[in-house]
Amino acid sequence: MESMIYMPIVLAVIGLIYMWIKQSWVMKQDAGDGKMKEISDHIYEGALAFLSAEYRLLTIFVVIVSVALAAVSFIVPTTHVLIVVAFIFGAVFSALAGNIGMKIATKTNVRTTQAARTSLPKALNISFGGGTVMGLGVAGLAVLGLTAFFIFFFHFFMGGEWTNTMDMTIVLETLAGFSLGAESIALFARVGGGIYTKAADVGADLVGKVEAGIPEDDPRNPATIADNVGDNVGDVAGMGADLFGSYVATVLAAMVLGNYVIKDMGGSITDNFGGIGPILLPMAIAGVGIIISIIGTMLVRISNNDAKEAQVMGALNKGNITSIVLVALACFGLVKWMLPETMQMEFFGEGLQEISSMRVFWATIVGLVVGGVISAVTEYYTGLGKPPILKIVQQSSTGAGTNIIAGLATGMISTFPSVLLFAGAIWASYAFAGFYGVALAASAMMATTAMQLAIDAFGPISDNAGGIAEMSEQDPIVRERTDILDSVGNTTAATGKGFAIASAALTSLALFAAYVTFTGIDGINIFKAPVLAMLFVGGMVPVVFSALAMNAVGKAAMEMVQEVRRQFRDIPGIMEGTGKPEYDKCVAISTKASLKEMMLPGLLTIGFPLIIAFVPMIFGMDHMAIAEMLGGYMAGVTVSGVLWAIFQNNAGGAWDNAKKSFEAGVEINGEMTYKGSDAHKAAVTGDTVGDPFKDTSGPSMNILIKLTCLIGLVVAPILGGHASDHTEMAIIDNNVQTEMKADVSGDILEVVVIYKSVKEGQEVIEKKLFKGYKADIKKEINTFEALLEKAGNSVVEIKELN
Amino acid sequence: MESMIYMPIVLAVIGLIYMWIKQSWVMKQDAGDGKMKEISDHIYEGALAFLSAEYRLLTIFVVIVSVALAAVSFIVPTTHVLIVVAFIFGAVFSALAGNIGMKIATKTNVRTTQAARTSLPKALNISFGGGTVMGLGVAGLAVLGLTAFFIFFFHFFMGGEWTNTMDMTIVLETLAGFSLGAESIALFARVGGGIYTKAADVGADLVGKVEAGIPEDDPRNPATIADNVGDNVGDVAGMGADLFGSYVATVLAAMVLGNYVIKDMGGSITDNFGGIGPILLPMAIAGVGIIISIIGTMLVRISNNDAKEAQVMGALNKGNITSIVLVALACFGLVKWMLPETMQMEFFGEGLQEISSMRVFWATIVGLVVGGVISAVTEYYTGLGKPPILKIVQQSSTGAGTNIIAGLATGMISTFPSVLLFAGAIWASYAFAGFYGVALAASAMMATTAMQLAIDAFGPISDNAGGIAEMSEQDPIVRERTDILDSVGNTTAATGKGFAIASAALTSLALFAAYVTFTGIDGINIFKAPVLAMLFVGGMVPVVFSALAMNAVGKAAMEMVQEVRRQFRDIPGIMEGTGKPEYDKCVAISTKASLKEMMLPGLLTIGFPLIIAFVPMIFGMDHMAIAEMLGGYMAGVTVSGVLWAIFQNNAGGAWDNAKKSFEAGVEINGEMTYKGSDAHKAAVTGDTVGDPFKDTSGPSMNILIKLTCLIGLVVAPILGGHASDHTEMAIIDNNVQTEMKADVSGDILEVVVIYKSVKEGQEVIEKKLFKGYKADIKKEINTFEALLEKAGNSVVEIKELN
Repeated sequence: MESMIYMPIVLAVIGLIYMWIKQSWVMKQDAGDGKMKEISDHIYEGALAFLSAEYRLLTIFVVIVSVALAAVSFIVPTTHVLIVVAFIFGAVFSALAGNIGMKIATKTNVRTTQAARTSLPKALNISFGGGTVMGLGVAGLAVLGLTAFFIFFFHFFMGGEWTNTMDMTIVLETLAGFSLGAESIALFARVGGGIYTKAADVGADLVGKVEAGIPEDDPRNPATIADNVGDNVGDVAGMGADLFGSYVATVLAAMVLGNYVIKDMGGSITDNFGGIGPILLPMAIAGVGIIISIIGTMLVRISNNDAKEAQVMGALNKGNITSIVLVALACFGLVKWMLPETMQMEFFGEGLQEISSMRVFWATIVGLVVGGVISAVTEYYTGLGKPPILKIVQQSSTGAGTNIIAGLATGMISTFPSVLLFAGAIWASYAFAGFYGVALAASAMMATTAMQLAIDAFGPISDNAGGIAEMSEQDPIVRERTDILDSVGNTTAATGKGFAIASAALTSLALFAAYVTFTGIDGINIFKAPVLAMLFVGGMVPVVFSALAMNAVGKAAMEMVQEVRRQFRDIPGIMEGTGKPEYDKCVAISTKASLKEMMLPGLLTIGFPLIIAFVPMIFGMDHMAIAEMLGGYMAGVTVSGVLWAIFQNNAGGAWDNAKKSFEAGVEINGEMTYKGSDAHKAAVTGDTVGDPFKDTSGPSMNILIKLTCLIGLVVAPILGGHASDHTEMAIIDNNVQTEMKADVSGDILEVVVIYKSVKEGQEVIEKKLFKGYKADIKKEINTFEALLEKAGNSVVEIKELN
Repeated sequence: MESMIYMPIVLAVIGLIYMWIKQSWVMKQDAGDGKMKEISDHIYEGALAFLSAEYRLLTIFVVIVSVALAAVSFIVPTTHVLIVVAFIFGAVFSALAGNIGMKIATKTNVRTTQAARTSLPKALNISFGGGTVMGLGVAGLAVLGLTAFFIFFFHFFMGGEWTNTMDMTIVLETLAGFSLGAESIALFARVGGGIYTKAADVGADLVGKVEAGIPEDDPRNPATIADNVGDNVGDVAGMGADLFGSYVATVLAAMVLGNYVIKDMGGSITDNFGGIGPILLPMAIAGVGIIISIIGTMLVRISNNDAKEAQVMGALNKGNITSIVLVALACFGLVKWMLPETMQMEFFGEGLQEISSMRVFWATIVGLVVGGVISAVTEYYTGLGKPPILKIVQQSSTGAGTNIIAGLATGMISTFPSVLLFAGAIWASYAFAGFYGVALAASAMMATTAMQLAIDAFGPISDNAGGIAEMSEQDPIVRERTDILDSVGNTTAATGKGFAIASAALTSLALFAAYVTFTGIDGINIFKAPVLAMLFVGGMVPVVFSALAMNAVGKAAMEMVQEVRRQFRDIPGIMEGTGKPEYDKCVAISTKASLKEMMLPGLLTIGFPLIIAFVPMIFGMDHMAIAEMLGGYMAGVTVSGVLWAIFQNNAGGAWDNAKKSFEAGVEINGEMTYKGSDAHKAAVTGDTVGDPFKDTSGPSMNILIKLTCLIGLVVAPILGGHASDHTEMAIIDNNVQTEMKADVSGDILEVVVIYKSVKEGQEVIEKKLFKGYKADIKKEINTFEALLEKAGNSVVEIKELN
């Protein structure tokens, strides 16, 4: 079964073929009449204009980073220049996935509108079909790219056969370039998209609705196309890039930790998978997850043309729950099949422990449960009709101030169950199977990414479909039908954000663990003042990042406001519908402003870890001490980032639905209150604050924490591989003697362990050679000694090293 | 100079005598005519009513905690029952300090009003005199209580003479009870006071100003007295209790770390202060600080009756800066005098290092600089006319939504320089002199507490004086004069909050370091999953605490609103001024509601660390592992708490001053805009959100983080003293052999080190006995071995013990 290594690629290709079939099917659907098509084309062109402008800018970024990475790889012997190739492909694949998603979304919207003219089931079919294309595109490309590069590097560095964990470390370190590329693009897609969508939204509303008094989505408003483009740019492309990055990073981290499982087991294992079962497992789960997601999406359908939100939600839930259950079953089978029945794992501070493979399975179950529960928690704090929303509605009656306080408090309180859930998940999955367990919990959760994205993406598609129905003046029943889909989409958007946070949190922890093992440090001790100081700095970054993103929305929106005002003033007949608004100018402004404003937060994210890593290095600080400081920084960013993500997403979602509650009418102090009341106005103010929270700064937190940990991982070999001031190492034992010598580069040690053992009643002297990074072989020797002792050989007293 | 131990007590008593003289002087001032006196009496009685209700409730709390502590002390041999006595006295002293402050503040306000009728310099003299009484009361009682108990325990446990570091550890562990008592009372004073003041404020405004249309501070408003009481309860008593707690905790933490300096130096030192110089130093600095503060307060005076804000501010700055410079000089002298010229300090992961006493002095300078710079940073982000405020003012023109976003963003961005400052301070003071340096940086900063409090307390006194002038219908010039003082007071209130955060942050770190050394753990390694999980949980607690505090204000304010509405409805002639409002009912409601609502946040603060410590203990988890988890929790609370404190205080301060900017008029888009404009209304909404931020939840963060670390410190001996599963310990060396035996309790080890040394050319065998907690003696033996080697004795190869 050594060919198992190709299995994920096969599954990814099947996923991409199914995507292509689904895409062709969607494209064959009726795209409606002239006006609908015209509007849809405007949105499509605006979205593509943004994408190509963004890609032009990102090409420069990719070139700069590639040059830097190449330079590093020539200076640092443990970094191979192939990391540059992996980085570029990671960036390109991420961009490609975003492109596929954006194109299909902007083509599906008008087809959904057209279908809604006759049938709700068909409208759901088409909009969800578009979502499915997006989901499979993201997941398929992620698995395809990651696995292909793994196989390539496995052959390049190891000749396609297991040699030792050190060589595998180089394979995985180089593979980290792919993940870095994907996550860098994700950062700009999420932040840029988030700024774009809110700048257009606020600009369109402020001048159109408030100043000119024309309704939402009115074609006379020059910013209306930009607004609709924004939905696709932010919610579709941004979310897609986010989950593409998470998917790749999670699987990568699990592979790194799988390699360390092999290390803990003595440096090599014998299994049917060429001795790399623990490394292949996460890829296999990801591959199988694609097929399961396809099955899940097939279950999403309704038959009743008069169906309401509950039935649509039910259809989505059926597909989702089925796929989660199938993933659980698949994990059981794959774990049983691919992992040794018992493994040795090193638990920090507790030494080597025997772990049965079933415990790894339980860790994956932890991941699946967390994914489900966090969605429920998010739904509770942001769902229409739930107690927190009703409370915000009540507090709106005493003005915007109390509405804001209630919304902030709701977001803040929601961190309580969410963080306890995450903390419990970390604890449980670690207790089951160490950090390998944490990484596999994340992998299992992410296995249904294609399904999650399909559910997520169908929301903005339906939202756009409703906008097109409005702009092309369809029969009200069309809008009613798209509204049902849109309303369900709003709920799934909120729970999808919960899922994205949970995945980011677990992924970051797995990356964090991979970082510690890559650098070879003993852990991250916050009782060292510099580490503690960096924990503080790391904690601050998400807060400042959020503020920058919020301010960016404000600035970009102001530019949009001025342009819309100018058009209303300068274009004759625009208000009468005889003059044609210059949509493209607004699209250009939103594009330009969002790309400009995403620079500073991006710089903050990328710059801080690099400063922490390299500035002290210039001053000659011990590399291990720097590695620990950077680890403290990563932990600070992760803890604070997760908190601020939950806070901002849930506060924003809660304000949004508190405002929406007024549409159907709410009871305040015994009186029914509707849209247009003072309480509603207060709720609108709350929603204005919530918009950048939930669509710009909040979702960016995910990328911030993942990218921070990935940068750490890529920097790790530079920090860990050159600890020339840590060369002394002594293994002294009653009857185990060691010799060691450093090779020319000073990085790699060879250690000979000479030991007494009893063979056939005879006491014999044997030798074993260990070669690798200092920290690595230390561990391997420890393990070896433990095994010697276990076998009843004459190692009577072993001294703990360090 | 062994009598130096009594020096701080003498200085504290001098401070208290000066306080008494100043108090008599203030009380002798003219308290004005009938109506003024009547109003003042109402405020005085309301404040006392709150205090006595609060103390009744807290007595129950103190009794419960005392019983629990006593029970623990009987079960755990390393905890002495005297901790209960220390705890009760800590609580009583804190309450006493609050009582002194509140009484003098409510007596000084009316005298300030009376003085302002004739002279501004005199009004400043009196209001600042009241502040001085408060400041000296707090500082004097803190130093008196802490020092007296230290001397008592020093004699009780050690017979007044140095024995060993373990006995001193017991002295300091017992002394921690005093700090715990002080900080517990502070928690309730800050949170309860914060809820009280905002509930009364919002209640009075909502019904009085908005519904009934009567001006602020109108005597017809039943909640107006409660509102004025609130200023004293929150800003005077709350801040006083906060700084009382910080003062005690800082000095205590520095003493604990001083004891560890002695341990690092081989277990005993020879100096002129009975061998406890490093432990006495922080107390000496605190004592001298009292005298310096008295000098500083004497410099605060103006002579010009037409002085403006700048002159008043200048007078305050003169006193403040002088006292800071004097503290720096005093630190230089005291460090030179009291510390050995060179010390050995154990740096984590770097081993023993030689530290000259001058480096400790530089650490104190770091503390003084941080205190000054953080005030400047806070002033920048919240000061009238500063760029961030002007930006919020501009954003008010587009509505409450953009005003709120701008205010939130300002608070968030302000974490950037503040956290970098703290991180730099931690790093620098640690680099100078280890965690002892961090603790002494905090001690130096806190040395001017009396001066800081005088500056802080004079603000609300002047605010009250203005209110009394309004209510008693004085000549407008009186209000103008008190307004000058009030305006300066607003600035000092904001910078005072910055000072309180900085002091809390450094104090918590010092407590954190003391905790690690008390428990004897090797550090806090966040690479262990349970520790990382607790870091997350700790990070969440300040967020949830803040939300609870904000919601509490909302609930309490609603009760107040209903009572005021009822009185307007039920009391005949109340609006015409013929019916007398029932002020006491409103006072009672604010009192009751705030006491009720402070329970849940209090429970959260105290409950969480206890659950983390004791629940895993019940399940038989390793005590050292629990200690590390609790340490992770403490770090999480500290990092997140500092961030949320800065964010909330500065956002609140910024909104407040953005609103105030409209009083003098601001230019928005080229037009002058004033009170009553739409932009002003948006700014008022922002201020409503900011009120609980800056006066309730924000300032509570300080206490939350300090109390969390203190609870850890008190729990530490229970965790660290019973690590029965860590009994094995081996010291094997070429020529140093050790014997060891555990005594019956299993907690305390005795270790004999037998070593070869060369005396007068003769090689002799010598013995040295070590006794103490396992972790402690490990360290001591290491040090001893290092010293042996240094002396040229024949220890050629020493194995590192983990």
